[in-house]
Amino acid sequence: MIIPKNKKIPKGFRFAVASAGIKHKGRADMGLIVSDVEAAAAGVFTTNRVRAFNIDLNKKKLRYGRGQAIVVNSGNANVCTGKQGEKDTIYMADSTAQLIGVAPGRTFVCSTGVIGTPMPMDNVRKGINTLARDLGKHSISDVSNAIMTTDRFPKTSSRQIMVGGKMVTITASAKGAGMIDPNMATMLCFIITDARIEGSAMKKVLKDVVNDTFNTITVDGDMSTSDTVLMMANGLAGNKIIKPGSKDIKKVKATVHDICYELAEMMVKDGEGATKIIDIEVKGAKTKADARKAADAIANSLLVKTAIYGNDANWGRIIAAAGYSGANFNHRKVSIFFNRLLAVKNGVSATTDKAANAELKKKKVKITIDLNAGKCAAAALSCDLTEEYIRINAGYRT
Amino acid sequence: MIIPKNKKIPKGFRFAVASAGIKHKGRADMGLIVSDVEAAAAGVFTTNRVRAFNIDLNKKKLRYGRGQAIVVNSGNANVCTGKQGEKDTIYMADSTAQLIGVAPGRTFVCSTGVIGTPMPMDNVRKGINTLARDLGKHSISDVSNAIMTTDRFPKTSSRQIMVGGKMVTITASAKGAGMIDPNMATMLCFIITDARIEGSAMKKVLKDVVNDTFNTITVDGDMSTSDTVLMMANGLAGNKIIKPGSKDIKKVKATVHDICYELAEMMVKDGEGATKIIDIEVKGAKTKADARKAADAIANSLLVKTAIYGNDANWGRIIAAAGYSGANFNHRKVSIFFNRLLAVKNGVSATTDKAANAELKKKKVKITIDLNAGKCAAAALSCDLTEEYIRINAGYRT
Repeated sequence: MIIPKNKKIPKGFRFAVASAGIKHKGRADMGLIVSDVEAAAAGVFTTNRVRAFNIDLNKKKLRYGRGQAIVVNSGNANVCTGKQGEKDTIYMADSTAQLIGVAPGRTFVCSTGVIGTPMPMDNVRKGINTLARDLGKHSISDVSNAIMTTDRFPKTSSRQIMVGGKMVTITASAKGAGMIDPNMATMLCFIITDARIEGSAMKKVLKDVVNDTFNTITVDGDMSTSDTVLMMANGLAGNKIIKPGSKDIKKVKATVHDICYELAEMMVKDGEGATKIIDIEVKGAKTKADARKAADAIANSLLVKTAIYGNDANWGRIIAAAGYSGANFNHRKVSIFFNRLLAVKNGVSATTDKAANAELKKKKVKITIDLNAGKCAAAALSCDLTEEYIRINAGYRT
Repeated sequence: MIIPKNKKIPKGFRFAVASAGIKHKGRADMGLIVSDVEAAAAGVFTTNRVRAFNIDLNKKKLRYGRGQAIVVNSGNANVCTGKQGEKDTIYMADSTAQLIGVAPGRTFVCSTGVIGTPMPMDNVRKGINTLARDLGKHSISDVSNAIMTTDRFPKTSSRQIMVGGKMVTITASAKGAGMIDPNMATMLCFIITDARIEGSAMKKVLKDVVNDTFNTITVDGDMSTSDTVLMMANGLAGNKIIKPGSKDIKKVKATVHDICYELAEMMVKDGEGATKIIDIEVKGAKTKADARKAADAIANSLLVKTAIYGNDANWGRIIAAAGYSGANFNHRKVSIFFNRLLAVKNGVSATTDKAANAELKKKKVKITIDLNAGKCAAAALSCDLTEEYIRINAGYRT
C-alpha cells in the first residue's frame, strides 16, 4: 500500500519545529531533521562569493559524505555577521548535536533570512532546547512551514519507488519564493530517503538534478548567500545498495528530479507577488550555451515579466531579450509561440494582438522561441512581475 | 555674450517637428534636424543582434563620415517588420532628403517605440511633408519633445566653448527613460555642433564619451534594438579644424562628456516610475573588469532598487549582488558608504539601521563600495524600482 502523498516519510527520520522568536514572535522559525542512524549525505551550495559561514562549515563536514541531522532557522541568514556570526553557527550545530546525541561532524546547520544582523542567540538557544525536547512530535510539513520567509505556502514533495526489491521513500522539504530574478534566489531544500545509496552515486545524482531543476530558475552564479540543497539517505528501507551506473540509480535520479522539479515550480508559483508561471523554451539554437543564454535573458527581462502580467503579448520584448543575450541567431528566422499559438514567424507578426493577448490570460503561460539556427534547446521557469513584488521587497526588513 | 543655456543653437542648424499621429493623435511624434551644409558625422549604435534596419542603413551611410540631416519618429520602432519595414525606412530617408534638397546618403533615419508593428506610412508621409514645409520653425527642444516615448520630460543639453579662437556651440537632444535595467535601455541622442572637427578625431571622442556616460547606465551588449547616438559637426563656427591629439580636441571631448553625462543623468532620473537616482561607485577592485561587474550587478539588482525605494539601507543585498557579480574579493574586507556614512566596515555593520536609512531619504543617493582588493574603480548610475514602473510597463502597448 502506498500511503497518501503528504504523509510519505522515509523510515527512521524524525522532525521537530520551534517558535524561537528570531524575527517574529509566535511563528515557527526553527526546524530539526534527524535520522536514527548515520546516512550517506551530499550537498549542493550557492556559488556566491559572499556566502554564509554555514555553507563552508557544511561543505567541510560533507567531505566525509556522511550526515545525520540538519538544524535550520528562518528570520536571520547569519551572513556578514563577522567572527561572532561564525561562532554562533558552530554553536548551533554543536549544541544541537550534543542535545540529540549525534556527532557534531554529522550535524548540518542552515539559516535563511536577513543579511547582516547578528543572530539573537538567546532565542536560538531556547529554540534548540525545544527542538531537542520535541524531536519526533512534528512532521516534515511542519519543517517546511518553519523555514518559510517570504513564502506564501510551505513546500513539501514526496515519492515512493521500488528499488532492489524494496519500497523506498524519498521526501523533500524546501523554501524559496523570491525567485523572480535569479539574483534573488534564496532557497533551501532538504531531501531525505530511507534508500541505501552509494555515496558518490548520490552526489552525482544530486548535482545533475539541481542543474536541471533549481538551476533553471536560478542561473549559474546568480545565487543568494545561503542557497543549500542537502540530501541524506539512511538505508533503513533495507534495499541492496544502489550503485553508480545501475538501473536503480537511474530510477532514483528520475524520482529526485520529479521531486525537485515540483518544488522548483512551487517556488516560481510563489514568486513574490507573482500571478502567473512563465515556462520558457528556447529551441533551434546553434549551441546549448546559446539556448541557455537566450532562455535566461528572456526569463529575467523585466519588460517581458511586466508585459505578461499585463496580458500583453509584446513579443518585441522577447525577441529583443534574445537579441542582447549573446546568443547567435538571425531574427528574421525566429518563430515565437504563446502556448500553441504561432505569434511570430520569420521575425514578423503572424497573428493578431487580440489572439495573442488571450493566450496570456492563463495561470501558466508557455513561451516557445525557435531561433531556427540549429538543434539545441534550453528551458527556464519564470514568473510575472507585479506591484506586489515591489511592496514586498521595499518593505522586507521593516 | 553667452546666450541662455536652453537657447544655445550651433550655427547653421534648423529644426522641425510634426504631429503625424503615428501612435497617438495630436502630439508631436516626428522631428527633423538639418544642417545648412554637409557636416562631419559619426555614430554609436546598439550592439543588440536584433536591431532596427535603420541602424544598418545609418552605419552604411556613415562609412563616408559625412551627414547633413536626421529624420526621426517616436511611437513605432519599425523593428521586426520584415521587408516592408526596410522599404519604409529607406523611404523615410529618401523622401525627406528629396523634399529638403539633401543627398539621401547624408540623411539619417531613426525610429523609437513599439517593436513588431508595421509603420503607418500614410501618417509618416504626411509627417515628412509637414517637417519639410516647417523646417526652421521649431527649436531643438521641440525635437526633444517629439522623440519622447515613456519619457516624462524632454532632454536637451548645450555648452559653448572657445576653440581655435572661436566660440563654438555643442548641443544635444536625447530621449530615454526605461533605463531602470540596462536591458531596457532605449535611447536616442543627436549631438550637433558648429565646430569644425576632423572626422576621425570626432569618431573617437564620441565612442569614448558614450562608453563613459550612456554605457554606465546601459551595460555593454544590453541595449535595445534602436539605440543610436549621432553627432554632426558642420564647421560653420569658422574655427581652425580640430585635429586628433590636440588640446582643442580634449576640450571638445570634455564638453561632449559633460553634455552626455547630463543627459544620461536625466534619463536615469526619468527612469520609468523612479523617485531617486542611485549613484554607485565601486572602488578597491583588483581589476577594472571586477569593478565594472560589481557596479553593474548592484545597479541592476531588483532587491537593491526596491530597498532604496523603501528607504531601507539593506546593505546585505548590495554585498550579495557584488558577491554574485563574478568580481574577486573577500567580503570580510568590504566597506560600504551611504553618501558619507560608513555603514559597513570589514563586511559587518558599522552603524545603526536608523542612521543608514536616513541617508536614503535624499533624491540622489550615493553608494560607495570599497572591495579593498586592489586599486581599480567603476561607476554606474541607477534608479529605484517602484510600483509605477510595473504599471507603465504592464500597460505600455494598450
